[in-house]
Amino acid sequence: MIKEFMGKDFLLNNEPAVKMFEAADKMPIFDWHCHLSPKEIYENREPEDIAELWLAADHYKWRAMRSCGVDEKYITGDASGYEKFKAFASVMPSLIGNPMYHWSHLELRRYFGINDILSAETADEIWNKANAVVKAGGFTPRELIEKSNVSHLCTTDDPADSLEYHVLLAKEDFKCKVLPAFRPDKALGIDMPAFLPWLSDMEKRVNVKINSFTELCEVLLERINFFASLGCCASDHAFAYVPYEEATADELEAIFAKAKNGEAVSVVEADKYKTALLAFLAAEYAKRGWGMELHIGPMRNNNALMFKKIGPDAGYDSIDDQLIARKLSRFLDSLAAKEQLPKTILFTLNPKDNYVLGSMLGNFQSSEAESKIQFGSAWWFNDNIDGMREQMKALGNLGALGKFVGMVTDSRSFLSYPRHEYFRRIMCGLLGDMVEDGLYPYDEKALCKIAQDISYNNAAKYFGIK
Amino acid sequence: MIKEFMGKDFLLNNEPAVKMFEAADKMPIFDWHCHLSPKEIYENREPEDIAELWLAADHYKWRAMRSCGVDEKYITGDASGYEKFKAFASVMPSLIGNPMYHWSHLELRRYFGINDILSAETADEIWNKANAVVKAGGFTPRELIEKSNVSHLCTTDDPADSLEYHVLLAKEDFKCKVLPAFRPDKALGIDMPAFLPWLSDMEKRVNVKINSFTELCEVLLERINFFASLGCCASDHAFAYVPYEEATADELEAIFAKAKNGEAVSVVEADKYKTALLAFLAAEYAKRGWGMELHIGPMRNNNALMFKKIGPDAGYDSIDDQLIARKLSRFLDSLAAKEQLPKTILFTLNPKDNYVLGSMLGNFQSSEAESKIQFGSAWWFNDNIDGMREQMKALGNLGALGKFVGMVTDSRSFLSYPRHEYFRRIMCGLLGDMVEDGLYPYDEKALCKIAQDISYNNAAKYFGIK
Amino acid sequence: MIKEFMGKDFLLNNEPAVKMFEAADKMPIFDWHCHLSPKEIYENREPEDIAELWLAADHYKWRAMRSCGVDEKYITGDASGYEKFKAFASVMPSLIGNPMYHWSHLELRRYFGINDILSAETADEIWNKANAVVKAGGFTPRELIEKSNVSHLCTTDDPADSLEYHVLLAKEDFKCKVLPAFRPDKALGIDMPAFLPWLSDMEKRVNVKINSFTELCEVLLERINFFASLGCCASDHAFAYVPYEEATADELEAIFAKAKNGEAVSVVEADKYKTALLAFLAAEYAKRGWGMELHIGPMRNNNALMFKKIGPDAGYDSIDDQLIARKLSRFLDSLAAKEQLPKTILFTLNPKDNYVLGSMLGNFQSSEAESKIQFGSAWWFNDNIDGMREQMKALGNLGALGKFVGMVTDSRSFLSYPRHEYFRRIMCGLLGDMVEDGLYPYDEKALCKIAQDISYNNAAKYFGIK
Repeated sequence: MIKEFMGKDFLLNNEPAVKMFEAADKMPIFDWHCHLSPKEIYENREPEDIAELWLAADHYKWRAMRSCGVDEKYITGDASGYEKFKAFASVMPSLIGNPMYHWSHLELRRYFGINDILSAETADEIWNKANAVVKAGGFTPRELIEKSNVSHLCTTDDPADSLEYHVLLAKEDFKCKVLPAFRPDKALGIDMPAFLPWLSDMEKRVNVKINSFTELCEVLLERINFFASLGCCASDHAFAYVPYEEATADELEAIFAKAKNGEAVSVVEADKYKTALLAFLAAEYAKRGWGMELHIGPMRNNNALMFKKIGPDAGYDSIDDQLIARKLSRFLDSLAAKEQLPKTILFTLNPKDNYVLGSMLGNFQSSEAESKIQFGSAWWFNDNIDGMREQMKALGNLGALGKFVGMVTDSRSFLSYPRHEYFRRIMCGLLGDMVEDGLYPYDEKALCKIAQDISYNNAAKYFGIK
Repeated sequence: MIKEFMGKDFLLNNEPAVKMFEAADKMPIFDWHCHLSPKEIYENREPEDIAELWLAADHYKWRAMRSCGVDEKYITGDASGYEKFKAFASVMPSLIGNPMYHWSHLELRRYFGINDILSAETADEIWNKANAVVKAGGFTPRELIEKSNVSHLCTTDDPADSLEYHVLLAKEDFKCKVLPAFRPDKALGIDMPAFLPWLSDMEKRVNVKINSFTELCEVLLERINFFASLGCCASDHAFAYVPYEEATADELEAIFAKAKNGEAVSVVEADKYKTALLAFLAAEYAKRGWGMELHIGPMRNNNALMFKKIGPDAGYDSIDDQLIARKLSRFLDSLAAKEQLPKTILFTLNPKDNYVLGSMLGNFQSSEAESKIQFGSAWWFNDNIDGMREQMKALGNLGALGKFVGMVTDSRSFLSYPRHEYFRRIMCGLLGDMVEDGLYPYDEKALCKIAQDISYNNAAKYFGIK
Repeated sequence: MIKEFMGKDFLLNNEPAVKMFEAADKMPIFDWHCHLSPKEIYENREPEDIAELWLAADHYKWRAMRSCGVDEKYITGDASGYEKFKAFASVMPSLIGNPMYHWSHLELRRYFGINDILSAETADEIWNKANAVVKAGGFTPRELIEKSNVSHLCTTDDPADSLEYHVLLAKEDFKCKVLPAFRPDKALGIDMPAFLPWLSDMEKRVNVKINSFTELCEVLLERINFFASLGCCASDHAFAYVPYEEATADELEAIFAKAKNGEAVSVVEADKYKTALLAFLAAEYAKRGWGMELHIGPMRNNNALMFKKIGPDAGYDSIDDQLIARKLSRFLDSLAAKEQLPKTILFTLNPKDNYVLGSMLGNFQSSEAESKIQFGSAWWFNDNIDGMREQMKALGNLGALGKFVGMVTDSRSFLSYPRHEYFRRIMCGLLGDMVEDGLYPYDEKALCKIAQDISYNNAAKYFGIK
């Protein structure tokens, strides 16, 4: 039997899956890692049209268009919103098997009430329908967030950030709690051009000079406390690979001095610095019960020409393939040995490492939390049916899937919340398949509990939100 | 319900798949990468028997026999054709799950009209039936190619090759266009024993001395132009890993001089040479709109003893596992930065890299072609149902599957064209499963277009054949 | 249709699978690699209760409990057996998708006759029922082994081991043949703290001083002969990676002397030593027709703090991700070139290497055995439905699945034999799916032969047991 395209039982193949999804679907969303702008949430502006909502900043869609040979004019160039929308609609039929196909249609259905199939032929009609809906209202950031039943969301914030919009939002009458998350990538990136400008920003923020590695740690500690005062419960770090190198305090000061002086640091020096700084930060996270997210594997800005033209986060990133098992083990063990290992969520962008990470978890679990070390959900290039199923199967085989903290949008778009629905359907579909195949008892209560736990409760408990 | 073994709906699980395959099956074949001999096509000799057709040169079958403990006498030794056929038939039942099992039975059915199952028990009967069919005629290379509805095929030719048979074939009344493809592996293999002999052959071919890297480039350019004059539209390169190292012009001359002088070059020197020469060639391919194929991952001639006994391409190759993401990115970017990146088709022999390659594509797409950077189909050790499905799912998740240039035989055998049928069934089966699962609308027209595009149209457009 | 949880047709989806499993299920078990204690088999003690049987030594269960935040007190600590059992029962529902869920319930069913589902709610009832069954008898090691229809089992023994219990067992009236297997990891581990103590044990065992690499080889040869006299037919070696480095005889003596003198050897020195010693041993295995098992990929004792507290093999191991293709090829080729390559079974702990290993086999097959080079079954972290299916699919695609030597328990527990049933069901399920999909003829006789061969006959023939 051919299932209806994205019908009621989309991704659900049997009764247990349907029942689990009914239970999961009732749960609010705790989006503990996203790239939404607190400023935009605070300002709460009405969008112009669906082109602005969909195509102004979404590098996934840009990539999809480039894959089909669309000219950059219609992607990040000066074509009109209508022209860009039309160009995007035209490539849709070629995106068979791509999550973009589902995300876009889910967004059309859930936010715009449009059930049509997007293509060159239907582009004009959908453009008109969608923009009429936008004009009718309900598309400000806060309206979209509330409509999506989001109880809490964690933005991604630099330690040097003022968090002024978090301060302002805390005073607003807005149901969803908007919490900062601590992302010190620039502080760690001593080998990047952005390091010295960042240091300077930081000095201005805290109004002290940062003349040593020790002083940098002090300043970051102050910021951690400030983030904590605004409800922060998570930090986040991205690495192409795991940079574990041991160093003495003197070495660290020398490396910092070198960088501060504008000299290049070697790869090993940078790795020593990163190891020590991350270890310092991790110990502080551990004290506060924060979750430490490690996003391993992106190789960024691969196209120098396009980087010059349109900058970072424009769809020119891909998956690195470095060896990670040993250094990751040593880094986590160096913290565990001092009883300074925080709750940690390991993400891999390269699915070849699913079993490396899945088995790594078990080395450092403890009674401090249920699945203290988590395997982060399939992310970015793996944020699709296959990727999610593989990540959950690996976690199931190697750990306790029932304790999984589940999905995050990782998105810059206020329309991305249906990705939680997508995840929940995939998760309930996978578990339902297990029940159908006789691999787990058809105990409705137990199954619905697992589905709700993975959808919301586990993360709420893990990050300690109320 | 148990499906008939390799029945009418082989690999097709539902109506959408069946309809797509009906559409795909009508398309001719454009075999843009194979190892057929233009000489054999020109000479067009009748084969002796099925043993010659099947077992004289097929290292896949040799490997299968060795896996079952068959003595080398019955593989590449002096046993009779009948004995070899019987030995091969005897191992067939053990090849459950091996594509060889399907290829062999497809060939029996499509070319010989034999529907029996091959085993020790049926070997004699099939031997007799098959050889009667061979004797009745229709088994010359050109007859087999025409019977298989091949519109164009690209052979694999060394730059030093005279292409004399391509010249001769162009004058023949043969429906299939036989085009040369440019494979300068020996020119790039400065660290291989074959380099100096090749250089000498090349000097004879063009009747000039090649005394420098610059002169080598000039000579290769001349050959590129000659290949182009015979309709060449594709180049091909095989690398165990991606050899990206930057070098100055002086360094390149020094490395070339060293090799020409019979001295060993280091790995880094060889990589510098390869990088520069491939970059030079790539720029020339780009000017001519050729597709550049990069076949990454084979580790060749692993068994030194057997290499001495029976030489290369005898079934002693396997899959390498080097890190490829960074150097591949840098190499492609170095070309893109100079606007000299040709249409490029990335193949990996190691399926762990499916997501590395699949995400790499997006870094360098542009409006020069629909999916200018292609993810080559599952190849050699991955040329099976699982490998093909995984490659297409990765491409679907990460790029535009609808723009995929599809299958090549990569074969030395004139009986290999059913591998296109096999691929088309797997592809239609995969897409049909998506429709059945409600992941894509059941729009027959759109689906049949995708199936026909992947089967033929995309490649024809991409390589610019008429 | 929802299948009954672990019902009669558990993991079998169709009639061909059911018929194959009926045939497979009749076969005895040849467990050619396990970690059972010959001493315990000889002493044949009654166990106390199910807590002793399940939780006293099973690091899989410990890991599962830690994943759910159970305190170490209830894992390896001083809690009572009842408390530990209760803690384990409580985490069971969270282990959805984990093979532990199936293993535990299979053990309850096959040995205890308990069909209940284990959870916090049912823990007390199952505790009482199970212990009543234990008290009623039939749970000594030998009873369990006989009940499981094990014809032969190979323990894992150090060359310095006296094998006294093997000697004693050989004289007992015990249906199952208990054979030693040769595991010289400590002899190879020249870079480990255990090396000198081991050397000293060995000197005592053979009552000679070992003052050189050459003398070490002589002593090991003597032990090989002793092991052979007790029916040994297999050796086993574990490596995080493949340590291939060539060395001269003088270098080897110098390295040995250094280590013997208590000095640290470098990684390269250790690799030279390991390569040479393993090559020496391999040649001896080859002479005797032994199978050489290479277990590649474990990264052990990742948690230093817990290692100090509870020692090795406590659930703190995970999967390494080193590159293995080249060195493994060179090592096997160095043996093949001298015609000293024994029958070899390659295991990988990292599933990313399934296709590297699967294709490696073909480089070194020969007529000395059917599939002389074997791809070992999915093991440890891959010993689950997904891992086993992937390993068998890779082997099917790349080699001769019909010649596979199949499953081993690799276990320390006398209750682990249902893992053979689990494997056989998965194997028959996989093959049955192929038949159902029309990928292999529904030839019941041929299929049942394959199922029985993989379950028992292939291994019996390969290892030459009677």
